[in-house]
Amino acid sequence: MDYSQLKKPALLFDEDRCRKNIRAMVDKAARHRVELNPHFKTHQSRIIGSWFREEGIGKITVSSLRMARYFYQDGWEDITIAFPVNIRQSDQLDDLAANINLTLFVNNLVAAQQLDQHLSNPVHVYTEIDTGYQRTGIPHKKLDAIERLLDHFEHSEWLEFKGFYTHAGQTYDATDNEQIAEIHSLTLHRLNRLKKRLSGKYPDIRISIGDTPSCSISQNFAGVHSIHPGNFVFYDLNQFRISSCSIDQIAVALACPVVSRRPERRELILHGGAVHLSKQFELTKDQQPYYGLPVTLETSGWSGPWSNSHLRSLSQEHGILKCNKEQFNAYEVGDLVGILPIHACLTCNLMGHYVSLENEQIDHMEEAAYVDE
Amino acid sequence: MDYSQLKKPALLFDEDRCRKNIRAMVDKAARHRVELNPHFKTHQSRIIGSWFREEGIGKITVSSLRMARYFYQDGWEDITIAFPVNIRQSDQLDDLAANINLTLFVNNLVAAQQLDQHLSNPVHVYTEIDTGYQRTGIPHKKLDAIERLLDHFEHSEWLEFKGFYTHAGQTYDATDNEQIAEIHSLTLHRLNRLKKRLSGKYPDIRISIGDTPSCSISQNFAGVHSIHPGNFVFYDLNQFRISSCSIDQIAVALACPVVSRRPERRELILHGGAVHLSKQFELTKDQQPYYGLPVTLETSGWSGPWSNSHLRSLSQEHGILKCNKEQFNAYEVGDLVGILPIHACLTCNLMGHYVSLENEQIDHMEEAAYVDE
Repeated sequence: MDYSQLKKPALLFDEDRCRKNIRAMVDKAARHRVELNPHFKTHQSRIIGSWFREEGIGKITVSSLRMARYFYQDGWEDITIAFPVNIRQSDQLDDLAANINLTLFVNNLVAAQQLDQHLSNPVHVYTEIDTGYQRTGIPHKKLDAIERLLDHFEHSEWLEFKGFYTHAGQTYDATDNEQIAEIHSLTLHRLNRLKKRLSGKYPDIRISIGDTPSCSISQNFAGVHSIHPGNFVFYDLNQFRISSCSIDQIAVALACPVVSRRPERRELILHGGAVHLSKQFELTKDQQPYYGLPVTLETSGWSGPWSNSHLRSLSQEHGILKCNKEQFNAYEVGDLVGILPIHACLTCNLMGHYVSLENEQIDHMEEAAYVDE
Repeated sequence: MDYSQLKKPALLFDEDRCRKNIRAMVDKAARHRVELNPHFKTHQSRIIGSWFREEGIGKITVSSLRMARYFYQDGWEDITIAFPVNIRQSDQLDDLAANINLTLFVNNLVAAQQLDQHLSNPVHVYTEIDTGYQRTGIPHKKLDAIERLLDHFEHSEWLEFKGFYTHAGQTYDATDNEQIAEIHSLTLHRLNRLKKRLSGKYPDIRISIGDTPSCSISQNFAGVHSIHPGNFVFYDLNQFRISSCSIDQIAVALACPVVSRRPERRELILHGGAVHLSKQFELTKDQQPYYGLPVTLETSGWSGPWSNSHLRSLSQEHGILKCNKEQFNAYEVGDLVGILPIHACLTCNLMGHYVSLENEQIDHMEEAAYVDE
């Protein structure tokens, strides 16, 4: 990598690490005989998408209609929009369903009825089950509500029920590996129990799960048909904190120019702020928020995080980097510092493109000309 | 406003409120005989910029070279880049300085020397003074460091010293109006003392300040030459919390489709997440984070915030809205809820364009084809 051409904040991207992360998940899915439908919301990149193709992946997951269209235009023909269907977009969804194998999330009768009225093409349907995250879906114990919805699908012309989808996002707030395993185990237990209860009338219910922490650390996928993790392509400091990845698996780092030094506080002021990294944070041992950890940029990539150093504050464009003495003294105005992000999905979404360690631009949907829905 | 055409999250924009906010600040600056150099980083819009032109404003402030180029291409010829100069961009800054009256922030000798070597066009220079925010600039008491820098400018071929610039950003964390007034008063005191101490050798030092809270509530601008507030064009819930604005001055709201309902928790699930609003939050009375407040969308704009309701959690695309009983019962899947943002600058930056209450698209730099630096 020749850093002399980097003039402003740039999202560096380690292709080797990313491809290894992809291959590890592909291998794991094969080993456990689950289908991998990777979530593309983290990278939002056609080039990175093509690496999944090279590994034999044909079915993908996205988080919006816009993203589905972006990847459809790149030749993907089996796409799940993993977000409760927005019925205001029924017509546009129908257009897409005319061209690809489209799967939607339908969690309630209102959405189901609206789709029945507006669609003229078949779509597959997952119903989200809430096994404890308390975000979306029907609570796993509400058998009546679930059955009412499934009965509706039975008589629907366009909605073909596929199975249950669960995002156990509470793993992102786990304290460690063991807690992830406990959440995952309970998720599987609850989904399999539900599946069993309904198996008389619905023998072919598929189960799809896929938070990155569970998919990364678990060796148990009993009863699972498919997984749909996304963050694992890059990982980040949130995943590192909960032991879902090692620090060497993190595949993106924001290169930030040093624009000022504050010797009296041992702080480097970086061009690299909330519009680059997002305001997502983790907590230091002293319960203070931090927004990223600094690394040394090297020709072949970057170092591990500096000791006793963290990005303590972010403004719109500024990052304030608290440093240890040695690193503070090693950096001058005009140098570049690498910052490992807290939440790669949000950082990538903000940055809108990547720069590989071979100085190549890698695409991201946000940089593409406005993708119409 | 005809909401039937809104299919996905859209940033609604109340032109009346925005123009009133602009006019109030223009009037205030005139009344206090300070020059208004509005910060355009909040709106990043050529159309909104044109409304300042209509009010007679000719000099503007931005936060990056990219933004400076965006507005230069729209005909603005006097631009301050209010961010410590990034010397890796010296050549591009020089190109811009050939065409416009460019002001940079130079806070240290390294940057000054680098610019001397690379520029071939004159630029004006502000030096940032830290009066207590502890972000950038030279601490106000470090007279030696300040004088060394000013002496350097005296002998510089290209750097023409203009004065001191201070962003008292600690007002954004104030608890109320009185605390803003105290911070502002101390800021002025420190800057004027510094100016006086240096007045023998430098009689023409200009003082520029401009956090939105101080500019909004203060009636004292003694010694100030110019102000550069930005957020006031829209205001937001952060400004409202600290009494820098009234709730009726907030000029943007995110329209979010309801995609699910969770009766057992009285929560509406919205399409409207961290990629729309940003993860900036405020705290409820119970010290829980919230990411926005809901309002009812009406033909002519929107209501005040619902009682006992707040956006309690954000994922990448999801927003979880805790509701009072009445509002929960009034909303069905497919309806739209308005969300007042915590920090308008970040929300606007993420959304990339605005929709006026007359259903017109208003530009934002992020939506423009990639603006090269």
